Amino acid sequence: MPPPDPITTRVTAWAFENGTLSFLDQRLLPAEERWIICADAAETAAAIRSLAVRGAPLIGVAAALGVAVEARRAAGGSLSAFERALEMAFETLLASRPTAVNLPAAIARMRRAAASTVGAALEMRVRALEGEARRIASEDEAACLAIGHHGADFLESRIGPGAATILTHCNAGALATAGIGTAIGVIRVLGARRPVRVFADETRPFWQGARLTAWELSRDGFDVTLLPDVAAASVIASGRIAAVVVGADRIAANGDVANKVGTYGLALACRAHAVPFVVAAPTTTVDLATSSGDRIPIEERSGNEVLSIDLPGGGSVRLAPAGVAALYPAFDVTPAGLVDAIVTERGVARAPFAVSLQKQLTG
Amino acid sequence: MPPPDPITTRVTAWAFENGTLSFLDQRLLPAEERWIICADAAETAAAIRSLAVRGAPLIGVAAALGVAVEARRAAGGSLSAFERALEMAFETLLASRPTAVNLPAAIARMRRAAASTVGAALEMRVRALEGEARRIASEDEAACLAIGHHGADFLESRIGPGAATILTHCNAGALATAGIGTAIGVIRVLGARRPVRVFADETRPFWQGARLTAWELSRDGFDVTLLPDVAAASVIASGRIAAVVVGADRIAANGDVANKVGTYGLALACRAHAVPFVVAAPTTTVDLATSSGDRIPIEERSGNEVLSIDLPGGGSVRLAPAGVAALYPAFDVTPAGLVDAIVTERGVARAPFAVSLQKQLTG
Repeated sequence: MPPPDPITTRVTAWAFENGTLSFLDQRLLPAEERWIICADAAETAAAIRSLAVRGAPLIGVAAALGVAVEARRAAGGSLSAFERALEMAFETLLASRPTAVNLPAAIARMRRAAASTVGAALEMRVRALEGEARRIASEDEAACLAIGHHGADFLESRIGPGAATILTHCNAGALATAGIGTAIGVIRVLGARRPVRVFADETRPFWQGARLTAWELSRDGFDVTLLPDVAAASVIASGRIAAVVVGADRIAANGDVANKVGTYGLALACRAHAVPFVVAAPTTTVDLATSSGDRIPIEERSGNEVLSIDLPGGGSVRLAPAGVAALYPAFDVTPAGLVDAIVTERGVARAPFAVSLQKQLTG
Repeated sequence: MPPPDPITTRVTAWAFENGTLSFLDQRLLPAEERWIICADAAETAAAIRSLAVRGAPLIGVAAALGVAVEARRAAGGSLSAFERALEMAFETLLASRPTAVNLPAAIARMRRAAASTVGAALEMRVRALEGEARRIASEDEAACLAIGHHGADFLESRIGPGAATILTHCNAGALATAGIGTAIGVIRVLGARRPVRVFADETRPFWQGARLTAWELSRDGFDVTLLPDVAAASVIASGRIAAVVVGADRIAANGDVANKVGTYGLALACRAHAVPFVVAAPTTTVDLATSSGDRIPIEERSGNEVLSIDLPGGGSVRLAPAGVAALYPAFDVTPAGLVDAIVTERGVARAPFAVSLQKQLTG
């Protein structure tokens, strides 16, 4: 396999062609590459809810596209049925998952696009909504590229020369965005400049690191080593890791970062060993309306995802004995004080984040 | 089910009756309770190597018992064959796993017992070896009880009154010792004094928390909640955890603690949130000959245990795509500076551990 072009990837998780919206079913990876078609907003919301489609930026893009296909579907009926269908689409998609702010941000844009075309012919309105959804996708794609370059610049200012080992958690790659990824976008660009080896946390309970990051990066020719999440702290202590780069599901105005559960522990280990801890996310993930991390709603998933093992390809095997409860907060909050940099498409924000993030978003 | 008597347990992982040595096969729990018979030292070493028998104190006890059954088996032959069989037993058992110091400590005692009976009739020598192995087991049993009481006393001096939630990692219970457990021994005694709820890390990759701790504690009537390892830091940050109590595989003279991988991350989170971090282990786990944690050999297990899921009851399912490497250090080292107390059967050691541990072992 030839070395990957760092600015592209062989991996994509979504398609919107000839009005057909489809997603790579990420629950089945890496065993099977099956695409699912979402014919309306309800099917798109179901795909998001079930984690067939996941990753904060991709969830936003998917929701926007879900509104667009719903609009196309409803355009054959009356105006009032069209309006009702759109409203139902907004509500259903908004409720599909709570933590990633990209979802409400994308829905808000689609609402504005719908509102700004009130009075126009339905076909015109549908095209406007499709156009806005495509814009949301292509903006995310461009944001990933910019994040990649800014992030690689920052890392090169902080780590020594030569080959570098970067540790990442969960999947903030092409499978989580419309483009080359956020954290993995940074890794791709850095990988074009010097040899890069990636350590990927397996990321329990849903194995997004083992199933998705390992698949995505090995597909693009990267040297990937998988490790149990709990091994990350001692691997960081061993001095082998040049930097930890992760994505985010929501970043509060003060720089607190909600991301896949386990991120906070990585940040603690990085601080203990003076390893740069970098968060890579588009500005659509920054939520200036949320003042701090304790106000970010943290999704609690079913304890069954801990008590049993979901097997790739479907089915599950009971792990724990009967009568045992389980707790699965899907995200955690890393306090801003442990974050060395938040890299967005507009540049690198540093502490104090209350100032630097505000500047990036409004400047 | 009636509430458990805190000083006893319904769970036991070993039996040595009428010369037959058997162990509960911990690889199959909780799906199946199957006992395996170890007819000689090689079978005992294989049981230890395969993790059918695990837990630092129990490994020591098992090794001693394995020498005893080997001695009984070889007593029918010549003296020189007996001596050769013993020597082979010592070597094979010593090599079965590298990190827990209880194993070489138990073998050293069995060597001394063998040496002190040179010249006696073989039957006498076998009885001496059986007696020494039984003593090692009953001393561990007594140590667990004492650790439980000392540990509960220490916790009560550090946490507020009323119901307490204790978090533990891996399994340091009846399945890991000859008695009521070390960390879980502390939890059992505390549970006799006040309502105790246990949060158990699932403990990847081998699920000792999900399969063993959850099974053992729920069997004894405790309220157990399982969580993904990576959720522990945010659960600790949430203020719900009164203390973290873990076992140890080897404790260096300076108080550095080798324990199941993931322990170090827990200690970092405890320090960040001023939650007591307590290590419970018999003095046989303290190794004054090892000056500090960086000199403890850390077992690296096969990457296959990370790339695939070993299913309870046997078999495995591939998780990661082909071409991906994996790293599985089975243990990590928590620096003494993060440890609030090391509880042994002789009492509670506090910093500076170089002094307090020395005193406990030799005083």
